[in-house]
Amino acid sequence: MILFADRICDHQILRHFLCVWRALAALEYRNDFMNDTPIGSDEKAVPTLDELRQRIDRIDESIHLNLIERSEIVEALIAVKRTDKPGAAFRPGREMDMMRRLVGRHRGILPITAVEHLWREIIATFTHMQAPYEVVVEPGADLRDMARFYFGFTVGFTQAQTRDQVIEQVRTGQGRVLGVAGNEPDAQKAWWIPLSDKGVQVIARLPVIAQAGRPAAKDCFVLSMPLMDTTVPDIRLVALSAPSGSGVDDAITSVGGGILSRVMEEGHCEILAAMPFSVSNVEIESLTRLADNPMVIRGNVGGYWSPIALSSL
Amino acid sequence: MILFADRICDHQILRHFLCVWRALAALEYRNDFMNDTPIGSDEKAVPTLDELRQRIDRIDESIHLNLIERSEIVEALIAVKRTDKPGAAFRPGREMDMMRRLVGRHRGILPITAVEHLWREIIATFTHMQAPYEVVVEPGADLRDMARFYFGFTVGFTQAQTRDQVIEQVRTGQGRVLGVAGNEPDAQKAWWIPLSDKGVQVIARLPVIAQAGRPAAKDCFVLSMPLMDTTVPDIRLVALSAPSGSGVDDAITSVGGGILSRVMEEGHCEILAAMPFSVSNVEIESLTRLADNPMVIRGNVGGYWSPIALSSL
Repeated sequence: MILFADRICDHQILRHFLCVWRALAALEYRNDFMNDTPIGSDEKAVPTLDELRQRIDRIDESIHLNLIERSEIVEALIAVKRTDKPGAAFRPGREMDMMRRLVGRHRGILPITAVEHLWREIIATFTHMQAPYEVVVEPGADLRDMARFYFGFTVGFTQAQTRDQVIEQVRTGQGRVLGVAGNEPDAQKAWWIPLSDKGVQVIARLPVIAQAGRPAAKDCFVLSMPLMDTTVPDIRLVALSAPSGSGVDDAITSVGGGILSRVMEEGHCEILAAMPFSVSNVEIESLTRLADNPMVIRGNVGGYWSPIALSSL
Repeated sequence: MILFADRICDHQILRHFLCVWRALAALEYRNDFMNDTPIGSDEKAVPTLDELRQRIDRIDESIHLNLIERSEIVEALIAVKRTDKPGAAFRPGREMDMMRRLVGRHRGILPITAVEHLWREIIATFTHMQAPYEVVVEPGADLRDMARFYFGFTVGFTQAQTRDQVIEQVRTGQGRVLGVAGNEPDAQKAWWIPLSDKGVQVIARLPVIAQAGRPAAKDCFVLSMPLMDTTVPDIRLVALSAPSGSGVDDAITSVGGGILSRVMEEGHCEILAAMPFSVSNVEIESLTRLADNPMVIRGNVGGYWSPIALSSL
């Protein structure tokens, strides 16, 4: 047992040594620090490690008090908006505006995606405080991460067995359930076709900030029952069906749209197409009158705001 | 195609109707709101929905600018601390102090666990900016969530196949890898025994805030190579071994400790015991001199700070 006592003793000596070493190191680098990175004007000329930590603590207190004040305003909003109505609290257009402002204002070494996640946690939690909802996500660690990144840890959260289950839970959730489903260029089946019959629609596409090398980068959709939001996204999703896959890329590109996903089913080609706001109904309908491979418009399946494109990390 | 155009049209009419309905609803509840929840003093007597949203936007801007300032101070800290040394940036004692301050200062309807996660994302990301590290977590959606809750989305992140792989990656990570491993009262094997030989130790136990009904509630440990942190946690973890499982609970409780996990291996009982700071080495060593079922002390395997206990949600 002497060995046991010795180990504890050595540990403490080591710790004291490191403590002294770090104090010396801090002194050594003080001058460099003041010459290289002056930050703001302080009463004292040379901030020590402790002073820098105290500044961090003051900033954290300020952020926390701001969050508390935000929660008081949201309490007032609840009274004004009366948002116990399902689906009334989601405002993807306003959320996108918030993200654009964050990106526009950001500077410094903190990754913008960390800022994005902080606000997603804030927005998702405060929305949940206004009108409780839950998120159901299809299987897979990547998609679980996406849902946690965008909806945080306070909202109700379940992982379904299949994408069909996700859609069904959104439909039966009476506006209180959001779904998260992956987007693959080559889908196993045309999962988007039943959406419009069920009243389920795409309300967002993730990730919202497009940046090569970013974390939480899996391409996916947020599904919901129709929202009470009055803003219209800049990309509309249209389900199309063509007798064959021949020339569909060119045809859809020619009207200004793009194919997000396609699948050959029972001898015809089912297509999930993204149509920017600039593409008119007339242009979309022209796809039904093509001499070669005329398409059928199956319906709208919602829409999303174009991601905010940033240069890579 | 008339049908298609009609659908869009109906959608827009519905949206306009809802917009008018909401404006009327906002007017209707303005008076109630002013009587029930006055927030601060504003030039105008009656805040509208738009005014409340503008206040939220101003708060968000303030929080964002605070975060940017925090990143500038961390840049200065990097210069002062010279924390390219592996393991130099982790300060679990200071992080625990921060959490205690957050809990002490918190009020209002925002769940404290949402605040906890926001700061965990902030702390983990800023620590990563000082000295890059990654987190390796054992299999399971619950543990993945725990690791994302506590280390956020910016740090490197992998999920290993087994707990042994987690421990091995921490050992070979030269201080740049943290592990997350579950704590079960009845473990499959005494996984903690190899830790001290490998130089790996427990540096934290999660969740840090103990509150019934909280999200991210899975009991687990954070593993690390020895830190340069000089603070000593208030709970020490000791690996004990007894000839049998008979009376081990009473014996360990009698000195003031508790059993976190136990497993019968090859005819003896391996125990992971939590010893509060108040339990002396002499008291722990007294367990080796028990007449009935004397224990062997296998070594220290780190420690953690007692969770902050809060009443349930």
